[in-house]
Amino acid sequence: MAVSREDALARDAADPLAGFRERFELAGDVIYVDGNSLGRPPKATGEALAALHERWATRLVAGWSEWIELPLAAGELIGRELIGARPGETLACDSVTVNLFKLATAALDDRPGAVVTDRGNFPTDRYVLAGVAERAGREYIEIDAPGELPDTKLALVSFSHVDYRSGALADMAAITAAAHARGALMLWDLCHSVGAVDVKLGEADLAVGCTYKYLDGGPGAPAFLYVRTDHQGRLRNPIQGWFGQRDQFAMGPAYDPEPGIARFLSGTPPIAGLVAVQAGAELVAEAGIANVAAKARALTAYAIELHDAWLAPLGFELVTPRDELRRGAHVALAHDEGWRICRALIERAGVLPDFREPNVVRFGFSPLDTRFADVFDALDRARDLVARGVHLELPLERARVT
Amino acid sequence: MAVSREDALARDAADPLAGFRERFELAGDVIYVDGNSLGRPPKATGEALAALHERWATRLVAGWSEWIELPLAAGELIGRELIGARPGETLACDSVTVNLFKLATAALDDRPGAVVTDRGNFPTDRYVLAGVAERAGREYIEIDAPGELPDTKLALVSFSHVDYRSGALADMAAITAAAHARGALMLWDLCHSVGAVDVKLGEADLAVGCTYKYLDGGPGAPAFLYVRTDHQGRLRNPIQGWFGQRDQFAMGPAYDPEPGIARFLSGTPPIAGLVAVQAGAELVAEAGIANVAAKARALTAYAIELHDAWLAPLGFELVTPRDELRRGAHVALAHDEGWRICRALIERAGVLPDFREPNVVRFGFSPLDTRFADVFDALDRARDLVARGVHLELPLERARVT
Repeated sequence: MAVSREDALARDAADPLAGFRERFELAGDVIYVDGNSLGRPPKATGEALAALHERWATRLVAGWSEWIELPLAAGELIGRELIGARPGETLACDSVTVNLFKLATAALDDRPGAVVTDRGNFPTDRYVLAGVAERAGREYIEIDAPGELPDTKLALVSFSHVDYRSGALADMAAITAAAHARGALMLWDLCHSVGAVDVKLGEADLAVGCTYKYLDGGPGAPAFLYVRTDHQGRLRNPIQGWFGQRDQFAMGPAYDPEPGIARFLSGTPPIAGLVAVQAGAELVAEAGIANVAAKARALTAYAIELHDAWLAPLGFELVTPRDELRRGAHVALAHDEGWRICRALIERAGVLPDFREPNVVRFGFSPLDTRFADVFDALDRARDLVARGVHLELPLERARVT
Repeated sequence: MAVSREDALARDAADPLAGFRERFELAGDVIYVDGNSLGRPPKATGEALAALHERWATRLVAGWSEWIELPLAAGELIGRELIGARPGETLACDSVTVNLFKLATAALDDRPGAVVTDRGNFPTDRYVLAGVAERAGREYIEIDAPGELPDTKLALVSFSHVDYRSGALADMAAITAAAHARGALMLWDLCHSVGAVDVKLGEADLAVGCTYKYLDGGPGAPAFLYVRTDHQGRLRNPIQGWFGQRDQFAMGPAYDPEPGIARFLSGTPPIAGLVAVQAGAELVAEAGIANVAAKARALTAYAIELHDAWLAPLGFELVTPRDELRRGAHVALAHDEGWRICRALIERAGVLPDFREPNVVRFGFSPLDTRFADVFDALDRARDLVARGVHLELPLERARVT
């Protein structure tokens, strides 16, 4: 197929999910390819937050009779529609970091052995897991990449389903089985896969994930956690708070946790955040996660095709796997000048990707609001500015950016 | 002074803070006396959240260059204006429960000895402290009330500054000194005092507090924490997340915490919540915490005066201290029929207080939006319905309410 903008427009015209783009607030004309860091605001979110504000003003404290169900309701929506969980296995609450801490600590309370993750896992995962292992007096092992496990007694194995840098998608079923074969619980971080990949947790024991990327919950929106049903009665939430208490408003003398998933709640849930999570997740569920994941594969395939045609000759290197079943919804391109190319795209070319050390430019394609034309334009502008050496005009030093 | 509604109106006319009431969204005509559970929405909050939504839509991920400062900025506002902290000692983040867990765990890592709290402390405080003590293999001691400490080696003493049931205000300076004399760190829970009492943390080591009561941050808004400067380099956050990392976006191989208060951050901060916290705290700061606290004392004094005149003869008992320097901004009235009286006030009399087991009706007077006429009306309606026996028409069983 010829590389042309007309071709990109034809792909958009044939896209069954194209209509979802207008469900988002689209301001300005930047080519946004960082939905894998922060999704756009759905229009429904603004409406849901305005309705919440109205309920807060009118019902005041009595509003809690509705709000108190939100961690379970928003969790259930994510669990049922997006990650293949059974009913009563998913909660929306706290941050990914706090949820990782809760589940990893519970896992080490549950069984002896070491903790394994990979050297390339997201920083907060590595920092939390190392800290939890140290606190429990366990060995903490970092392997090179998700895959073959060390031949020692393991309590907990934790990887990201989609690697935040490379975009590589781990083989969930095979790795979960390998962890089980070592006697470990398997904890998946779904931050970069939920809402972009048709996640099937299957026999996985534990999972956490984030809602501000492909679920469009907004900056710092509450995270979620998953605990497989048969573990719930046995695993203990180390942060013993009143929202995990069986008969919360009896305010009894001792902690007596809920029998089910609600025991993994701790403090008072953040209602505005949960309302936004629900609105965002509903949009993905409406589109259907299988359809969303198919579009993610098509968008990334198109980006790889354009990379091969335009960018590889300019010194870029594709970091993301070419096998469409082994990647998420972003494409990572390494270049010696990655930092300045990323800054030049933002400052000179109206394209908003992001950068990850040491040399990776990430192009993320949130499937519901990214057009094939956006993929075309983003990579076309990258090609143009690198060919003209525009990035070389920028300073070498790294400014602090998120 | 004669007990009359005219007198209440005269007090409102003389109230220098009366103008603040119109800074809130006031819907319906319920007499709201539960601002100690959930404050009303400030008008400024709706505006701030709309502005955030606009920034999210237009700046997308680049908005983080502003948002990333919010936990420190909102914390600093609370620290400086409301609780007598020094600069760089306060953060807004997570829930009260998670913050209690972080600070209590850090305290037990820091020194040997038992954990002390009181039997009447808020449930989440007791549950968290008991869990942290158990995990560290320490003795967990509940005494009857904040005050005399057991004569044993202590690592951590933690009380609520204002008791959530009785409204009693603990003697912060004396208790902090007593804890220090036992070698313990002193952790204050400011949930029911911040924004209602002129808190002066002084030599206190640690504190947590909530923003959805007198700071009007909205349901489940993020909490805050305080760590005295000289402890910050030594105390470790057990939830080692990327937002506590010194050079966060280097995403380095090992956890290396920030030297100062920012090490007590864990995961990605909840931005919508923090924007609301800031808007609410700014309103209290604008009024001036000394003025706000003076009005709280005047409102509660008036409620006690009305209780004595009207309610004591009907079987009510004042649980809250009569000494205005020993109470917060709510008044607790016990009655054998407390449950049905509370329900009747809500369902039949247009008054919204709340109930705490076993028999306490709490009347909370958020100083910026509660009028002396509201105090008059709330207690007048209670007098009227109990005198007429209206509450006796309601079922005895407890419905679940928050």
